[in-house]
Amino acid sequence: MSETSKIGSYKFIAEPFHVDFTGKLTMGVLGNHLLNCAGFHATDRGFGIASLNNNNYTWVLSRLAIELEEMPNQYEEFTINTWVENVYRLFTDRNFAIIDKDGKKIGYARSVWAMIDLDTRKPADLLLLHGGAIIDYVCDEPCPIDKPSRIKVASTECVATYKAKYSDIDVNGHFNSIRYIEHLLDLFSIDTYKEKRIKRFEMAYVAESYYGDELSFFVDEVNPNEFHIEIKKNGEETVCRSKVIFELKK
Amino acid sequence: MSETSKIGSYKFIAEPFHVDFTGKLTMGVLGNHLLNCAGFHATDRGFGIASLNNNNYTWVLSRLAIELEEMPNQYEEFTINTWVENVYRLFTDRNFAIIDKDGKKIGYARSVWAMIDLDTRKPADLLLLHGGAIIDYVCDEPCPIDKPSRIKVASTECVATYKAKYSDIDVNGHFNSIRYIEHLLDLFSIDTYKEKRIKRFEMAYVAESYYGDELSFFVDEVNPNEFHIEIKKNGEETVCRSKVIFELKK
Repeated sequence: MSETSKIGSYKFIAEPFHVDFTGKLTMGVLGNHLLNCAGFHATDRGFGIASLNNNNYTWVLSRLAIELEEMPNQYEEFTINTWVENVYRLFTDRNFAIIDKDGKKIGYARSVWAMIDLDTRKPADLLLLHGGAIIDYVCDEPCPIDKPSRIKVASTECVATYKAKYSDIDVNGHFNSIRYIEHLLDLFSIDTYKEKRIKRFEMAYVAESYYGDELSFFVDEVNPNEFHIEIKKNGEETVCRSKVIFELKK
Repeated sequence: MSETSKIGSYKFIAEPFHVDFTGKLTMGVLGNHLLNCAGFHATDRGFGIASLNNNNYTWVLSRLAIELEEMPNQYEEFTINTWVENVYRLFTDRNFAIIDKDGKKIGYARSVWAMIDLDTRKPADLLLLHGGAIIDYVCDEPCPIDKPSRIKVASTECVATYKAKYSDIDVNGHFNSIRYIEHLLDLFSIDTYKEKRIKRFEMAYVAESYYGDELSFFVDEVNPNEFHIEIKKNGEETVCRSKVIFELKK
């Protein structure tokens, strides 16, 4: 198999209700598109959720890191390429390139996934899946951004709380991965987004939360442009951690 | 021009993060798709926001009513047809049909739009637009659901409040029309959505709200399946009103 045939390529347009007040695609919508592309690519190759569910398995997103020079503008076309970088026994690394309307690579993303057994919730051995055929899709396309980092949050001061509602819950009954991104980014004022843009964004998904859970938000301001955020549920268990790195707009 | 050539037809798929915990497309996402289709249809015919903005005008959504027998399921394809039913001096009626993967019409929607001058915020005369050419697109395709009704809310007891955040604000600096729908529907518990589905949904957009505005929600329970809801900003001015009609799931 050639390297190019291992790469999935998907076109999008930045829709009016998917851009923020600056007219740029939101990070939540970009995250949604990335996860959809992961799904399309896996499905086309026989590793999608639908075929896995027949075998009682599902993919679980563990880490996501996105780094961008710019975001697509409202009504602009853009393309997302995705490919598998590595397959280990319990994790696989899937990368992405974000390409603007003129064919310029404006950003990259990295993601880490595990496969779990739906009954036991235990991780499955990816190298045994379909006789190890997933390895045939490993591709050495470059992804010149840092891997998802280890995020630690020291703050014990809760800066906001949010009770999980109907619109937050996905088909698995879990708080939807994209909604965490939106709620996290709503911690920052609109003035922040007037002056700065998000250069790098990371999510570490640690545990699931559910309808009615009370989420609490803790923030370390590492420097004026770097924030480490932790979401806990019901005052105790960590649900996810995030790193948001801004830069001043040019 | 034939009647069929006046109808725009657009295909969609119910994406994983666009369905609720029951695996059905959410009302907010359907609303988003309807408004996008309105935009596509108008743009293709020279009445889109981009060409209007050159003339310093924009479309403003005034009313939306959606009535459905069922919602598309996760991963299912569906189609939205849209056409112009009437053009008056200050308003135009645009209708929609929602068609499932097998070609069956599963629902309809009606919308009412005005065109305003961006400087004066005053309504413009639609019959003067492009020499009245919009009338050529009026189409007599049937839309067998009731027109948007007049919604009155008597309750003075605020049942919830919400402060408008970064993610709620659109490119015009206004609270995004779709977000109102999501916040309204989050007033109902997940148990409501386990037992019932939304049969008919209406929105009347009355005034804009902005970043930092405190929205308050007022609800009249007309009967166990019918709710009239009003959103006010900063304790006074009405922003929008909604009617939500449920039916027990079969």
